[in-house]
Amino acid sequence: MSTVAAYAAPAPKAPLERTTIERRAVGAHDVLIDIKFAGICHSDIHQVNEGWGEAIFPMVPGHEIAGVVTEVGSGVTRYAVGDRVGVGCFVDSCRECDYCLRGLEQYCAKGNVQTYNAVDHNGDVTYGGYSKQIVVDENYAVRIPDSLPLDVAAPLLCAGITLYSPLKHWNVGPGKKVAIVGLGGLGHMGVKIAVALGAEVTVLSQSLRKKDDGLKLGAHDYRATNDPATFAELAGKFDVIVSTVSAPLDFSAYIGLLRTEGALVNVGAPEEPVSLNLFSLIVQRKTLAGSMIGGIAETQEMLDFCAEHGLGAEIELIDADQINTAYDRVLSSDVRYRFVIDTATI
Amino acid sequence: MSTVAAYAAPAPKAPLERTTIERRAVGAHDVLIDIKFAGICHSDIHQVNEGWGEAIFPMVPGHEIAGVVTEVGSGVTRYAVGDRVGVGCFVDSCRECDYCLRGLEQYCAKGNVQTYNAVDHNGDVTYGGYSKQIVVDENYAVRIPDSLPLDVAAPLLCAGITLYSPLKHWNVGPGKKVAIVGLGGLGHMGVKIAVALGAEVTVLSQSLRKKDDGLKLGAHDYRATNDPATFAELAGKFDVIVSTVSAPLDFSAYIGLLRTEGALVNVGAPEEPVSLNLFSLIVQRKTLAGSMIGGIAETQEMLDFCAEHGLGAEIELIDADQINTAYDRVLSSDVRYRFVIDTATI
Repeated sequence: MSTVAAYAAPAPKAPLERTTIERRAVGAHDVLIDIKFAGICHSDIHQVNEGWGEAIFPMVPGHEIAGVVTEVGSGVTRYAVGDRVGVGCFVDSCRECDYCLRGLEQYCAKGNVQTYNAVDHNGDVTYGGYSKQIVVDENYAVRIPDSLPLDVAAPLLCAGITLYSPLKHWNVGPGKKVAIVGLGGLGHMGVKIAVALGAEVTVLSQSLRKKDDGLKLGAHDYRATNDPATFAELAGKFDVIVSTVSAPLDFSAYIGLLRTEGALVNVGAPEEPVSLNLFSLIVQRKTLAGSMIGGIAETQEMLDFCAEHGLGAEIELIDADQINTAYDRVLSSDVRYRFVIDTATI
Repeated sequence: MSTVAAYAAPAPKAPLERTTIERRAVGAHDVLIDIKFAGICHSDIHQVNEGWGEAIFPMVPGHEIAGVVTEVGSGVTRYAVGDRVGVGCFVDSCRECDYCLRGLEQYCAKGNVQTYNAVDHNGDVTYGGYSKQIVVDENYAVRIPDSLPLDVAAPLLCAGITLYSPLKHWNVGPGKKVAIVGLGGLGHMGVKIAVALGAEVTVLSQSLRKKDDGLKLGAHDYRATNDPATFAELAGKFDVIVSTVSAPLDFSAYIGLLRTEGALVNVGAPEEPVSLNLFSLIVQRKTLAGSMIGGIAETQEMLDFCAEHGLGAEIELIDADQINTAYDRVLSSDVRYRFVIDTATI
């Protein structure tokens, strides 16, 4: 056991404050990671606010973790002291269900162990990345290639893989036309990755406010969804649309933007049920689907892909004492495009 | 041109009555078919009643057509006089779009020519199978294998292919668990085909009223959806669910019956928009999809498959003067499982 400085929410909806937590002793298959940077994901705020149900407090959020290995257990084979590594949304899974065996630990049949706000297989509460160190089983860490700076790599562990996985699963590549709905933390990575995969990429955003940014990120087109002409002009255009927003969209209208056999994949989702005309799916064999983060092997693949193509997140680096302000700004969509905490300031 | 006896609805919602229609002269690539049997599809009634929008009258419905070739055009190579053939939901398409070139004429980018209630490429109104003869381009007819009786083969041209296509597209076969929602004209063919494909098949029906039938058709299990225990006991079970019903289901509940990466495919659809919780798709990468009939090559494949496995529709053979009564019985779900008109009685 070791005592580690962290930022925690002491109670639901409470501001985060500096505190200390205990990390477990480094086991045979564990690595101890000096956390250098931790991204702020919208879901951190959801969980602090118990928007997704009752949570565990004090809570140390953070599942976009980038750091350096400083100690390894006796049985560790994948990493050595000094290795640059990342940790994403989960730190363990059952390792024996069909999904774990296929590298789809994100869909573990028994439920994986979330990086924070969860109880691990030893019965201990998990604490996330807003802290100085973390102890993780080596099989749930991924290698960050040397060419990727750790600060811009951190958000790839959630925002990056959340977009990479569906873009790959739905076969996005050269010759494919892709739309990314929403240009936020998730969406801006979707644009970068889809462009790097060779697709023709359009951003669908409420307004043209961030159009210059979108085009700079590589998007080939940028359209406002508050303009009805968008839906007329782009009808039947896209092979794949990935929606990153949690606003209740007019889904039938977006399905109208798909070509025959196209897929509308949701990685963000409204909390309320949405309304949908099923004929819009039937007459052209379209699909409406969902996708959630990615498995360990695919996360590694994503990091290697991002390194190869020089892709990192666009970030605003903050000190730990700015976390609460950053939360407010995330809620008002005032971030381009991801806050990352410099954990040296914790 | 030839004058042919037929049953037609003279006006929207009007009872069908005996009349005559003109069929075009047999062109170089046409076959003249003596229609022997024509199935009654629920969509015939929808169109007579203008439930799907303004229609063309007088209307001769019928797109489940089985008959025998009695004349061939000078350029015909696929069929000879005496061949047993079928015609399904469309009789022409653009033949040059991506979909037509891939054998997906049902999704023709320019819209295919429906077998009735449509205007063909010559500007002539199309008339369907409730008649003694039809003239069709040879490329839009399919061969009915000798071992399939024509009366039970007729419904395969719509009901059969409507189920076969999604079952194949979503990889139903040995080791897969499939549910068919609704045991009507479509659903009963879904059970037969899914069983023949080697899947474990469950019928999900409102009540257990037709349970004996369902099991006789080969289903391995039969559950009532008016019993909440069904949704608890079968949670996470199915790889594929095909819904054949047009009632507004609780789609989120049915998605709960899918295993991770499962697909709920609609071939029937409510006219009103449905409500859906998208989280049910996201957390296990599930899909909600639609599918519509099938292409010509796949329809041929389906007929060959049905012949190989001895599958025909369960039918009630009727005389033409019973068509209006049959319509009433279809609307009250009082048919096991498809009405087929003996066109000798027209």
